[in-house]
Amino acid sequence: MKAEIIAVGSELLTPDRVDTNSLFLTEELNKLGIEVLRKTIVGDNRELLAEAFRDALNRVPVVITSGGLGPTEDDLTRETVAELLGRRLQRNDDVVRAIEARFRSFKRDMPAVNLRQAMVPEGAEVLENPRGTAPGLWIEDKGRMVALLPGPPRELKPLFLEQVLPRLRRHVSGVRMFHRELRVTGLGESHVEERIRPIYTRYPHINTTILAAPGEIQIHLRIWTEDATQAETTLEEIVRSFELALGDRIFAHKAVTLEDVVAELLTTNRATISTAESCTGGLLAERLTRIPGSSTYFLGGVISYSNERKTVWTEVPAELIASRGAVSAEVAVALAEGIRRSVGSTFGVGITGIAGPGGGSEEKPVGTVHIALATPTGTKERLVHLPGDREMIRFYASQLALDMVRVHYLFDGKPRPRRVNPAS
Amino acid sequence: MKAEIIAVGSELLTPDRVDTNSLFLTEELNKLGIEVLRKTIVGDNRELLAEAFRDALNRVPVVITSGGLGPTEDDLTRETVAELLGRRLQRNDDVVRAIEARFRSFKRDMPAVNLRQAMVPEGAEVLENPRGTAPGLWIEDKGRMVALLPGPPRELKPLFLEQVLPRLRRHVSGVRMFHRELRVTGLGESHVEERIRPIYTRYPHINTTILAAPGEIQIHLRIWTEDATQAETTLEEIVRSFELALGDRIFAHKAVTLEDVVAELLTTNRATISTAESCTGGLLAERLTRIPGSSTYFLGGVISYSNERKTVWTEVPAELIASRGAVSAEVAVALAEGIRRSVGSTFGVGITGIAGPGGGSEEKPVGTVHIALATPTGTKERLVHLPGDREMIRFYASQLALDMVRVHYLFDGKPRPRRVNPAS
Repeated sequence: MKAEIIAVGSELLTPDRVDTNSLFLTEELNKLGIEVLRKTIVGDNRELLAEAFRDALNRVPVVITSGGLGPTEDDLTRETVAELLGRRLQRNDDVVRAIEARFRSFKRDMPAVNLRQAMVPEGAEVLENPRGTAPGLWIEDKGRMVALLPGPPRELKPLFLEQVLPRLRRHVSGVRMFHRELRVTGLGESHVEERIRPIYTRYPHINTTILAAPGEIQIHLRIWTEDATQAETTLEEIVRSFELALGDRIFAHKAVTLEDVVAELLTTNRATISTAESCTGGLLAERLTRIPGSSTYFLGGVISYSNERKTVWTEVPAELIASRGAVSAEVAVALAEGIRRSVGSTFGVGITGIAGPGGGSEEKPVGTVHIALATPTGTKERLVHLPGDREMIRFYASQLALDMVRVHYLFDGKPRPRRVNPAS
Repeated sequence: MKAEIIAVGSELLTPDRVDTNSLFLTEELNKLGIEVLRKTIVGDNRELLAEAFRDALNRVPVVITSGGLGPTEDDLTRETVAELLGRRLQRNDDVVRAIEARFRSFKRDMPAVNLRQAMVPEGAEVLENPRGTAPGLWIEDKGRMVALLPGPPRELKPLFLEQVLPRLRRHVSGVRMFHRELRVTGLGESHVEERIRPIYTRYPHINTTILAAPGEIQIHLRIWTEDATQAETTLEEIVRSFELALGDRIFAHKAVTLEDVVAELLTTNRATISTAESCTGGLLAERLTRIPGSSTYFLGGVISYSNERKTVWTEVPAELIASRGAVSAEVAVALAEGIRRSVGSTFGVGITGIAGPGGGSEEKPVGTVHIALATPTGTKERLVHLPGDREMIRFYASQLALDMVRVHYLFDGKPRPRRVNPAS
């Protein structure tokens, strides 16, 4: 079965806003085996909306709109669709009462304009929206299904899941989408492509998508079929082959970030971590602490932007900085070992480098970054030359630091939890 | 003049990718006074692409496509458009040579498939693409203009600016878009709306858009006209009224972030800053150091996730933490003053709070955050109860901390640069 999505709203035709509801809708529709054939974005204009809606309804049996259900003159979806389907709008008293109750809960009276939101096309089902004043609408018309949903994502998403999904499910065939995702770091898009192309081309009925995101590559495998057993077996087979081709570069088999993976490794192993950052400016600590419960493994960090701070907070000898330079393997190691010793954590990370755009030299160009990981079994250090702008260099550096922790657990066994006594 | 944008590519109909090229294209078209009437997203399907393209060409005189110019069988834009316009495809030897040269620069031979990219519809102009193998194409047909552009943003953007823009400019009338932007923090969307609605409703010919972004509200004013003087005068008048209505809550008159504004204030005043963060986990330092050249004002920061670290790095007395709790006004002030003293910076910021989802209590629920700013003229402290999830609470807290620095400069005069001697 096929569907089209129409996003309604003049703000979606400005440079400021992009329609993201359709990503959510596509994912949910795909899970039901419904393919999205086309997405259209139109402004708050009756004629253009009517044209887009009529064309979509001529092509596919499922049309979903978002937006244009508000109380103002600009909001035209309800009226336009009712007219196109030849159905009169009638005021629905239940909806009036629901909107009034909503305003009452804010201790306010319902403005008269909101009565427009209570107008329902004949024969349409009202989809209650506890998170806003605009109810959704569900219309079945000559075998076609139409859902009109409010634009704000926090209203649209639950409304779709709770009310549209069960209605669609009644009509769809047994075809479902089966999906696998792999996440890879430390390899570029073309290298990933090169390694897995000989595998996925052997499965022409499987849809393989390779997407580049900052510091990682996401590989999606999708198949639409009625045969769950066959689908699962085939996907498993491809994933195994991908694992052989990509080895330790796969960091996850689901949609999680590298900090999620590291957080889980640290938590499972009852290990702790501390950070001493220079060029990443706190980004590594920020990523490690994004995760709820991070205080169990993250003990503390410093951002030593000046040489003096490197010495005061992490006991990096001033002579070492003078002789080797602040951006050097030796200083990265001293930062990692210094913060680990000072904080008394299982791991200590040191990062020092040149994020640019200024500060580069012939010997140490912008993108030069040293990353060190101090562990109970010794300290590892990496020198990398990272491409891109300041933001990318900082992100890649934090990504590599996280990956060093992950790889430590892959290859160095699982160190026992341990706390070193603070140095001071 | 009106335009439509068609994004071509099956990956844009998956849940993984959203078309963002159209935002850039819309902005550039608007500047020329060209309004975008509709955006369509279609897969790599000849029939659907043909329908979308034909319909667009019937509605508007300018159609811009992105994507579908690659070398593979899936890439159908060139063929489909040529067929629709009744033009034969001919191999262009200049393009062949350009593609061959590109491969040669990578020390590789041109695969035969890439010859498809050298096929040019009769009468089309080739738009050279030094950043990729797919050239763009420009076709004028019965007064209509068609630009076919490659999908990757880093190829599309310069190609549009360098080659499409000058061609469009020849055809557009004198109508241009005039635009103003204001950025507001510390007020919700509905409060901003409430304060400025009485103003903007007096100017019905001006398009006013209010957009909510994390921790800030963006207000856009747009007008399309030939009369530059009149436009500038009217926009200036509205901006003045908005300034009266929103007061010190406006932090910028252009598209910059709050950290950009604070960075400029610190740099101009030759002031320096240091940070002692708990619940924000380094986010404030990370935002302050995103900006190139931040080492001139950012001296260093600590992330004191544990009580012990608060004592060791910022001399917060252990008894104070025990008596008042780690999340308290007194500890926030001690963090701010401690880091300022230790680092010797003009300003010191201390943040302590509960970002959740765990750790809240009846007395101190999730979202409770204390922020202190230590300055040469004394220390200010704010207690806030922030809504939302962990990510939002952390971001709002960092936003409020930055805003305290901004407001300090508004109301406390411009402190002279000063460096305190480090405490240790």
